[in-house]
Amino acid sequence: MKETTMIYLDNAATTRPNSGAVSRANEFITENYYNPSARYRGGDEAARALKAARQAVLAPVAGDKFDLIFTSGGTEADNHAVFSSARRGNAVTTAGEHAAVYESFVQLKSRGVEPRFATLNQDGSVNEDALLELVDEKTSFVSVVHVNNETGAVNDIFSLARRVKEKNPRVVFHSDGVQAYGKIPVRLTGDIDLYSISAHKIGALKGTGALIKRKKCSLLPFLYGGGQEGALRSGTENTFGIACFRFAAEEKFQMLVADKERLKSYREQLWSLLEKPLFERISPENGSPYILCVSASGLRGEVLQRMLWDRGVVVGTGSACSSKKPHSRVIEACGYGAKTLDGVLRVSFSSQTSAGEIERAAFEMNAAAREMRERLN
Amino acid sequence: MKETTMIYLDNAATTRPNSGAVSRANEFITENYYNPSARYRGGDEAARALKAARQAVLAPVAGDKFDLIFTSGGTEADNHAVFSSARRGNAVTTAGEHAAVYESFVQLKSRGVEPRFATLNQDGSVNEDALLELVDEKTSFVSVVHVNNETGAVNDIFSLARRVKEKNPRVVFHSDGVQAYGKIPVRLTGDIDLYSISAHKIGALKGTGALIKRKKCSLLPFLYGGGQEGALRSGTENTFGIACFRFAAEEKFQMLVADKERLKSYREQLWSLLEKPLFERISPENGSPYILCVSASGLRGEVLQRMLWDRGVVVGTGSACSSKKPHSRVIEACGYGAKTLDGVLRVSFSSQTSAGEIERAAFEMNAAAREMRERLN
Repeated sequence: MKETTMIYLDNAATTRPNSGAVSRANEFITENYYNPSARYRGGDEAARALKAARQAVLAPVAGDKFDLIFTSGGTEADNHAVFSSARRGNAVTTAGEHAAVYESFVQLKSRGVEPRFATLNQDGSVNEDALLELVDEKTSFVSVVHVNNETGAVNDIFSLARRVKEKNPRVVFHSDGVQAYGKIPVRLTGDIDLYSISAHKIGALKGTGALIKRKKCSLLPFLYGGGQEGALRSGTENTFGIACFRFAAEEKFQMLVADKERLKSYREQLWSLLEKPLFERISPENGSPYILCVSASGLRGEVLQRMLWDRGVVVGTGSACSSKKPHSRVIEACGYGAKTLDGVLRVSFSSQTSAGEIERAAFEMNAAAREMRERLN
Repeated sequence: MKETTMIYLDNAATTRPNSGAVSRANEFITENYYNPSARYRGGDEAARALKAARQAVLAPVAGDKFDLIFTSGGTEADNHAVFSSARRGNAVTTAGEHAAVYESFVQLKSRGVEPRFATLNQDGSVNEDALLELVDEKTSFVSVVHVNNETGAVNDIFSLARRVKEKNPRVVFHSDGVQAYGKIPVRLTGDIDLYSISAHKIGALKGTGALIKRKKCSLLPFLYGGGQEGALRSGTENTFGIACFRFAAEEKFQMLVADKERLKSYREQLWSLLEKPLFERISPENGSPYILCVSASGLRGEVLQRMLWDRGVVVGTGSACSSKKPHSRVIEACGYGAKTLDGVLRVSFSSQTSAGEIERAAFEMNAAAREMRERLN
């Protein structure tokens, strides 16, 4: 199977770069390659382009009470948020976080901060009451993922942030918005202090992301040096990656509502085409339209995944980012048993996904699961 | 002046990307955009390409006792080295470091580690005896820049590292090799524990770099998450930037000796063409062939720099990375007075620099300095 004809449905892991955005950004490789810190016209132009990109990436989700630090990706944004803000007492998060938040929390223990993990509902959303119960007067930091990257469950971070701050107004509230940005409507409220986003989940490149911050929320620098990014993140700016991020975001937000409606119907169509009881559904109906997480219960997800590759369909299993573990920590925290955990497949869409691809994917998923089941009997 | 016809001589700030390297890397945007952590063939291929890039970037400067962590650039590599290794007692560096090391050292104080700064010789190299005097039994970390990014002075880090370890074998020795890698011959010895490099100084892109480490040197993780880069630097790998780094490095090392000889003669030719006493030389003769730092003593370097831009010649002043400060901290530490500091210009070359450009640059530098001097009289 030639890779260019593959049906790519692992977009929550990474997206195929948007060629239009990449070619619009190309001038930062060929012409305007100057260092944005240089004090001559070329440098000034590079600096102005950065400013325009900052505004273009920020404005669709936040008003003028927010600004933005460009980072090397979602993981850096998450690490910056956690280690800068969780520095005393305890810090509260959920069992459904991406590894970039989860593993940072695990690390807090050795820094004298007690990490607390709220339980999940079966769809992967956080148990809100459990989370609020963990927040007390010693809590310095709370982090709740906006869209769960494995199930697509959407947490109501706006209401949660408000309730957390009612309990303890000194808490810094962060959300990992990597799977939400450009995909579901987001408008940050004043209760959200920090919000992480990533470029390569919306058609831009790996190696670029951002940490959105409420201007009044003070952060420690994450990288020390030349003083770039308001002295919070030194290092020569990745001007090409940032320009790709800008142009991909502009396109994604223009299509946000249309894509959301279309992909929601595709997601439901795919689910309706999958044979039951071969497949069990994990993703909730009110979750992100970009993710359908299912389990071919009793089968091995990674084996199915490789069979599907050979059939020209690319899907995920658990989070690609923690592929060294046997089961998905997050799906396990949803309360599923070993048989379901074994069979997890994550099918995730992009703007490019077509109705024909959905039909073909359903056909191949059914065929592969049936074939594997027959082999086992 | 159309920017494409500019004579670009600010290559120590950033280089024009090598278009051949960029187009060879392009498959990581168009075809092999898979997440290297994904467990299907596309992911495996992306992971293999990473491995090949790691080897290609590492092998020209280090043997099999070393490995390499890809980072978001030289600044991250420097910060990782400093904060991971300087965790008790005191840490010793030089007054001639790039801001990424220097500002990290300044920060150590608040973490309970005493930073110590060795004085410089007038050419920007470290005073070796002064450095060794600062090392004692409580020293945990020593960092010495390999090639000074402002004057081009080369420190003999191999002999220094050996002498430091003779004094205290428990020291972790780091060198910022950003201006050395691919430009002067480097072969890391067992006394060097950590070595920082950057992609955009050798024709690859901003936003990529690496921290080379002796395998036996243990580091704390810098980013927590999915466990990439041996769990020392989590986050989806910047596959395109890393591939550009690889191809640019391969080309640079092939040309290293030829470029070095040619640029050394260009550097001396440029110096011989500059009018004295309009210009004073700061760079040593035995320094990097890629950098000629001079001062148009009594004139303002930034004004000259802008005049030169209008005349089609792009040069630097102090380090672009700390452009918010009035004088170069490093040149000041060389012992020069205010008049010399005011007039600093850094002319830095690349493989693309031609003899004709050198002549034209000398002509314009002389003309601009004369014009400015006459205006002042």
